[in-house]
Amino acid sequence: MEKIAIGTNFFIPMPVVLVGTKVGGKDNFMTVGWCARANANPPMILCGIGNQHFTPKGILETGTFSVNIPPAGLVDKTDYCGLVSGAKTDKSQVFEVFYGSLKVVPMIRECPVNLECRLVQSVTLPTNTVFIGEIEAAYANPEVMKNGRPDFSAIDPLLLTMPDNQYWRLGAKAGDAWSAGKMVKTKPTLGPEGRS
Amino acid sequence: MEKIAIGTNFFIPMPVVLVGTKVGGKDNFMTVGWCARANANPPMILCGIGNQHFTPKGILETGTFSVNIPPAGLVDKTDYCGLVSGAKTDKSQVFEVFYGSLKVVPMIRECPVNLECRLVQSVTLPTNTVFIGEIEAAYANPEVMKNGRPDFSAIDPLLLTMPDNQYWRLGAKAGDAWSAGKMVKTKPTLGPEGRS
Repeated sequence: MEKIAIGTNFFIPMPVVLVGTKVGGKDNFMTVGWCARANANPPMILCGIGNQHFTPKGILETGTFSVNIPPAGLVDKTDYCGLVSGAKTDKSQVFEVFYGSLKVVPMIRECPVNLECRLVQSVTLPTNTVFIGEIEAAYANPEVMKNGRPDFSAIDPLLLTMPDNQYWRLGAKAGDAWSAGKMVKTKPTLGPEGRS
Repeated sequence: MEKIAIGTNFFIPMPVVLVGTKVGGKDNFMTVGWCARANANPPMILCGIGNQHFTPKGILETGTFSVNIPPAGLVDKTDYCGLVSGAKTDKSQVFEVFYGSLKVVPMIRECPVNLECRLVQSVTLPTNTVFIGEIEAAYANPEVMKNGRPDFSAIDPLLLTMPDNQYWRLGAKAGDAWSAGKMVKTKPTLGPEGRS
């Protein structure tokens, strides 16, 4: 089967988060799909944000930001925060806000998991900046905890795909990680030295 | 409702990709969950990879890497590539490999979408390095194209959640992006200046 060349502007499936910042003293939230873990120890997370946006001002002003995981039930408000700019619209009242140990970082009570981050490094690229933050504290709503850990079936997170511009929920379980592959060829070596 | 503090080592839902590299002249593939877009124009993508892994050697040796999107049907081989290290196990025969315009970058024919990337910048963090690459070319299998664009229902990508270590497929559609939020409050301003 022949591969065909497609445009280079391809987007992998994106976890949808709401990035919270205090901009000019006002709470602001932005919908972000370019978000991933960046470092294992200490735990760090990164967000890629367009340089023309309002949120970077707050991240650089305060050296902090929050990453909030919206449930599927918050899809409308989540999308809204990606449609309107804090430069033109006050989004401080869209959600119930709470603060954690860093005091200045607004987090969203309706989001079942909230990460409170301190900016470690920002990587400026032509049209976007990748903000890397250390996770200083993390909070969850009790109802999403299972055996002392956050349970993603209960969190019910959103995924975003482009260019079809669709939000999705998690679907069927497709396999067990660090397990399904043991069926392939020889039994693999485990442990840090055995990771690919 | 009171929030409870949880450990800081929280993982958001992760799109699962296979990073292809040529290491010491041999094709190698690593399962990566820390992957996101990094820049809009030119299109760039990033991968966070543990510094002890084998794959970074190939990325730095060649200045290139590929990002391959495995379908749910490849979950076993995808997990396998995260279980065994190229330092100990030859993974060059796990998939059918093809090459694109950069010649040196191995890509996986069984993966419906493949991104051929040139390393732009690497950001070294305490335990991991974030590799940022420009998407030089992208390829797709004809059967996942719909109206000239990759269709994610056909791609059937994998998501990974931790600490439950579960692979998931995309589930029910949860809403239309850049649309669902128009129901919230006033109709938002669109366009680059109106983005949050």
